Amino acid sequence: MRPGARNKIVGTVKSVKKGDVMSLIKFDVVSADELSSVITTESADELDLKEGDQVELVIKAIHVLPIKRE
Amino acid sequence: MRPGARNKIVGTVKSVKKGDVMSLIKFDVVSADELSSVITTESADELDLKEGDQVELVIKAIHVLPIKRE
Amino acid sequence: MRPGARNKIVGTVKSVKKGDVMSLIKFDVVSADELSSVITTESADELDLKEGDQVELVIKAIHVLPIKRE
Amino acid sequence: MRPGARNKIVGTVKSVKKGDVMSLIKFDVVSADELSSVITTESADELDLKEGDQVELVIKAIHVLPIKRE
Amino acid sequence: MRPGARNKIVGTVKSVKKGDVMSLIKFDVVSADELSSVITTESADELDLKEGDQVELVIKAIHVLPIKRE
Amino acid sequence: MRPGARNKIVGTVKSVKKGDVMSLIKFDVVSADELSSVITTESADELDLKEGDQVELVIKAIHVLPIKRE
Repeated sequence: MRPGARNKIVGTVKSVKKGDVMSLIKFDVVSADELSSVITTESADELDLKEGDQVELVIKAIHVLPIKRE
Repeated sequence: MRPGARNKIVGTVKSVKKGDVMSLIKFDVVSADELSSVITTESADELDLKEGDQVELVIKAIHVLPIKRE
Repeated sequence: MRPGARNKIVGTVKSVKKGDVMSLIKFDVVSADELSSVITTESADELDLKEGDQVELVIKAIHVLPIKRE
Repeated sequence: MRPGARNKIVGTVKSVKKGDVMSLIKFDVVSADELSSVITTESADELDLKEGDQVELVIKAIHVLPIKRE
Repeated sequence: MRPGARNKIVGTVKSVKKGDVMSLIKFDVVSADELSSVITTESADELDLKEGDQVELVIKAIHVLPIKRE
Repeated sequence: MRPGARNKIVGTVKSVKKGDVMSLIKFDVVSADELSSVITTESADELDLKEGDQVELVIKAIHVLPIKRE
């Protein structure tokens, strides 16, 4: 199986907190070499990012989809 | 400034491809120790993740928000 | 009213589970003829999808917006 | 592989339109029996959905992740 | 029609830029009295928001769904 | 710090409701002049928005990211 998304990080489960409807799972990152971000070209112009610039990459937890190998 | 999201990865810009409306920015990951995922408790039950399990964490590029320090 | 999104599935409510902050609603699908997906062109190249290929379409429950006719 | 999301629709590729940064893929839906939605409990109270109510389920194309079996 | 989301802002179209696959639409905001945000309780604890605190609310353009009245 | 997203609304915290895993925070909007939306060009064609048209902008609460100035 291959998901149509380039950002694939490998992690190991650290904790699972089950709530009534939603659950929070924490992972230790094993590997994460490269990440891609898509933003509007206007935001890209405004941010004016250049090769080598250091940034924070913020990802809401609800947008992280764990896929288990079987 | 502090964003209300725990998943903060630090990366450096590797390339910027500007399109007509959207742009793709690639980053080399500098640090990414821990990641959190929120899924429905039903999905968590189905996935049956246990401490130490290795998973892939898939994140669509449109959900990665770069924040530049100034 | 017309939403600016092409993916409109019609469903009937099967169950409602109300949690403290978030609620989970399940629907039986009545009709869902066509679905569109937008991914990066890089991911599309990597997936190499051709007409007729069969795929799974995964959608997190938090990205499904119910709209009630009145 | 098992994704941590319950909404799995099976579809076949109908067309692929590659743009400069993003691509649009259309699918004919083969099967889609049940869908889950997560909304705030406040919105659920406001919508006041009852078993059997018919609704439209709107999903932005950028939130549909194709996964290819290999 | 009533969407299952509390954040409904009213705006007027200011400009439309059509790209090959994605389009960018800008709106002047006519009314936006109250907004709701859902984050993990861990992030909420970390942010430590108190009544009256002023914050920036950041929303990626791909998460704004225009709905046209007819 | 500058986030790579043009939609920045300023708000003040009105209430915080902490749930087991997710929390709901409500804000009074202080300023929100302009908002951008990105949709597929096909949806844009279908919506047929023209300068001056009035629309509702719907945003799920999970897509609103509060950022605290310090």
